[in-house]
Amino acid sequence: MPDSPSFRELAIEAALIRSSASVLGWDQETYLPTHAQTWRARQLSWLSGRHHELTTSEDWKLALQQAIEAADSPREQDSLNEALRQLQRSTRLPTSLVERESEVTSLAKHAWASARERSDFPAFAPEFEKILQISREKADLWGYQNEPYDALLETYERGASAASVAAIFDAVEPELVKIAKAACAHTTTTRPSLPPGPYPVEAQQTFNRKVAAALGFDFDGGRIDTTTHPFCTTLGPNDVRLTTRYDEADFTSSLFGVMHEVGHGLYEQGLEPDDFGTPAGSAVSLGIHESQSRLWENHIGRSRAFWSHWLPVAAEHFPQLGKIGLDDFLAAIHRSEFSYIRVEADEATYDLHIILRFKIERALVNGELAVSEVPTAWNEAFHSSFGLTPPDDRRGCLQDIHWSMGGLGYFPTYSLGNFNAAQIYASATRNKNIRDAIENADYRPLLEWLQCRIHQPGSTLNPAALVEHATGKAPGVEDHLAHLRRRYVEHTT
Amino acid sequence: MPDSPSFRELAIEAALIRSSASVLGWDQETYLPTHAQTWRARQLSWLSGRHHELTTSEDWKLALQQAIEAADSPREQDSLNEALRQLQRSTRLPTSLVERESEVTSLAKHAWASARERSDFPAFAPEFEKILQISREKADLWGYQNEPYDALLETYERGASAASVAAIFDAVEPELVKIAKAACAHTTTTRPSLPPGPYPVEAQQTFNRKVAAALGFDFDGGRIDTTTHPFCTTLGPNDVRLTTRYDEADFTSSLFGVMHEVGHGLYEQGLEPDDFGTPAGSAVSLGIHESQSRLWENHIGRSRAFWSHWLPVAAEHFPQLGKIGLDDFLAAIHRSEFSYIRVEADEATYDLHIILRFKIERALVNGELAVSEVPTAWNEAFHSSFGLTPPDDRRGCLQDIHWSMGGLGYFPTYSLGNFNAAQIYASATRNKNIRDAIENADYRPLLEWLQCRIHQPGSTLNPAALVEHATGKAPGVEDHLAHLRRRYVEHTT
Repeated sequence: MPDSPSFRELAIEAALIRSSASVLGWDQETYLPTHAQTWRARQLSWLSGRHHELTTSEDWKLALQQAIEAADSPREQDSLNEALRQLQRSTRLPTSLVERESEVTSLAKHAWASARERSDFPAFAPEFEKILQISREKADLWGYQNEPYDALLETYERGASAASVAAIFDAVEPELVKIAKAACAHTTTTRPSLPPGPYPVEAQQTFNRKVAAALGFDFDGGRIDTTTHPFCTTLGPNDVRLTTRYDEADFTSSLFGVMHEVGHGLYEQGLEPDDFGTPAGSAVSLGIHESQSRLWENHIGRSRAFWSHWLPVAAEHFPQLGKIGLDDFLAAIHRSEFSYIRVEADEATYDLHIILRFKIERALVNGELAVSEVPTAWNEAFHSSFGLTPPDDRRGCLQDIHWSMGGLGYFPTYSLGNFNAAQIYASATRNKNIRDAIENADYRPLLEWLQCRIHQPGSTLNPAALVEHATGKAPGVEDHLAHLRRRYVEHTT
Repeated sequence: MPDSPSFRELAIEAALIRSSASVLGWDQETYLPTHAQTWRARQLSWLSGRHHELTTSEDWKLALQQAIEAADSPREQDSLNEALRQLQRSTRLPTSLVERESEVTSLAKHAWASARERSDFPAFAPEFEKILQISREKADLWGYQNEPYDALLETYERGASAASVAAIFDAVEPELVKIAKAACAHTTTTRPSLPPGPYPVEAQQTFNRKVAAALGFDFDGGRIDTTTHPFCTTLGPNDVRLTTRYDEADFTSSLFGVMHEVGHGLYEQGLEPDDFGTPAGSAVSLGIHESQSRLWENHIGRSRAFWSHWLPVAAEHFPQLGKIGLDDFLAAIHRSEFSYIRVEADEATYDLHIILRFKIERALVNGELAVSEVPTAWNEAFHSSFGLTPPDDRRGCLQDIHWSMGGLGYFPTYSLGNFNAAQIYASATRNKNIRDAIENADYRPLLEWLQCRIHQPGSTLNPAALVEHATGKAPGVEDHLAHLRRRYVEHTT
């Protein structure tokens, strides 16, 4: 009789399945022909089913139990305990539900894209209804202490609860509104702008690659492609794929997008390859993932220190930049205004978009709002926060892909990411070597600090514990507010 | 107790697995980062293993048996009988061997590419040895009547045998040599050539797409990407991917490559989508596949009728073509010379490359030649057929990817494809409507004829029976020789 497989062997098999699905998902976003959607949905559903079957099998349970008994380091114990927590969640979902969800969301993404194109919410509503239904089923199967939304949030941010997020958001919202108003008012009085395009796509690609490499992204273990919706996905231990899109009128749109995705990519590339597939070698949460993307995009990418080095380099690729001074350039990229689209929002107004989405999806999941009521609820909330009414649903409740992916509970992690980014960056840059290196456009010391404190632990700590461990204090919003005030009220960074 | 799955359901599941592997294989050739090879090999190995497990399972056998008993049409019976033949072959291979082969060939492709780059046969030899070993193991497990090579050939061309292929090749070789010599001698005296480049890549892409669409390729169910080695692969019933490469000095290199792959693609797109995954909805053999690619590339693409319509269109994309007349253009694309590289060989010399490879790989598989002796054997045979000695192995025995993919037994199907292409094209164009339409650059009637007689039958007939059924006579070489004589000796087509 052959030895039964070890937990590590099974975890690698699960990672092979999940990462194969990621290849198919990446292709779905980048290159899939129009008529191939249905078959792709079935392929993904098959892979999801096999992954779920394996990770909830008796073999898996037994191997995990044996591994827990034999674990001989705290890191391994933490990793296996996390695997046990995931197992306890997974076993509550039947394989049929997992396969159904995979197929429904594959097709819903397609339905959403075409509904958004035509600004036709009713065309998406039936798919959204199915997804909401599946999400509620999952929440019920997983169980929760206070409200169904908690169970979904736990998928993305373990240890968080709707009530705790709501408390943070309620407390921070008035401060954010004050900052946003000041930032927008300042923008209206100054109106600096970038020299006009075109910024040719090829030159953007070359410059983006140069910056990505300087930040430490390894192109032998990853690549950058073009998609309508930028993302980062990991297809294997040495295969991290970023995507971006290009606007020839404004090179910073793609550049900051790439720096954002590079932040995600550096986290993935910073995980321990030998632990690939186990919690110790996996990203811990979306709120931590987003802290890395926001750190590189905003704290590095939009800073004076960065551009004092990179503006002359950019001018070699885009000659029109030769005419603009550093102060004007910074003023241009620090413009702030209340606008409709989250992914185009500036730092000063961004979190208000998130708070709005959190309130709506929490109400949806908890059964306090119907799918058909979403457009009205959205537009009313938007008007109250932003003083604007979206002219159509394309620029309102249809703008984001997340709900069509079944990602209810996902949105708040963006703001948690912003808060974490500021706290982590403030902590790292208390180190003079790191600060000095950044001034000299050398990002290695910062990256090494992040690798050691944030990336390498993988999922061996809860997100909140990871942040506390790395920065010396519990996660908070003060560093984020201070950062925004410095940049958007005092205009000093 | 749930109903046990039907054979159709299981066949679709197998197709989901195999086509998922095709997505990963396509990505491996197009976009995979350098350091991601090892993980990709493991992903592919896992998928191969699951495919083999499923298609040799007791469920599969039982469902197939039940389906055969219940089959109520000759088409279905033929399809299921072919499935049974495949099952009988598959069950002879253990899953471990299938997984090992998948992993070995994934890595060997990589080793081959770098050995070829450096023209370093000894660097590839150990991988080649492993592959040859696995091929022999497979031949022994499958069994054969006369020689191990038969068992491998059967994978690609069911019903063919090494002896029958050798008999055809031996008979045709002297005639081919005569034609090739006359063609090369003619080329030396005329020396017409295309106007010099550059032919910009973007203009080539636009023109290629226009031609591909005119031939009938459906871009909503397929696409064209760029790779070093052009190929066609099917990732689902509406997802046929072609690749090509570009040479700015000569637009015809990519164009004929695309027309070739479009021929493969039209076959795949012409199969019955409802039968996807079953033999009735699958291509029958490589020799038939290649007949479709060669038909569109050579019989359509290199013909006077084609260019009398398309040369003025090409001149709109490449202004330098405005200067060349049709006769000179045809003389340029009908140049023939003895050269080292198979994929760059012209029609008149191409089959000689194949005959050489067939002799060498037959000797390898049958144990009459050692891997280490391949470079010498190759160079001697090449000198005797072509009057030239390859200057290095990159231009000799290392030039082709096939052996690194485990494709021993594959090469002869290229020439069988050439022979079939000529016979099928001659038969189709006996129809005046088809001939007239082709003269008017309307390829639909020809495509419909092919769809009806060659594509739609899928694998319900043996390749030889399919050709006989479609053309009214057993497969032969006369139409091919007649075609070559007309074009390369008499210069009339």
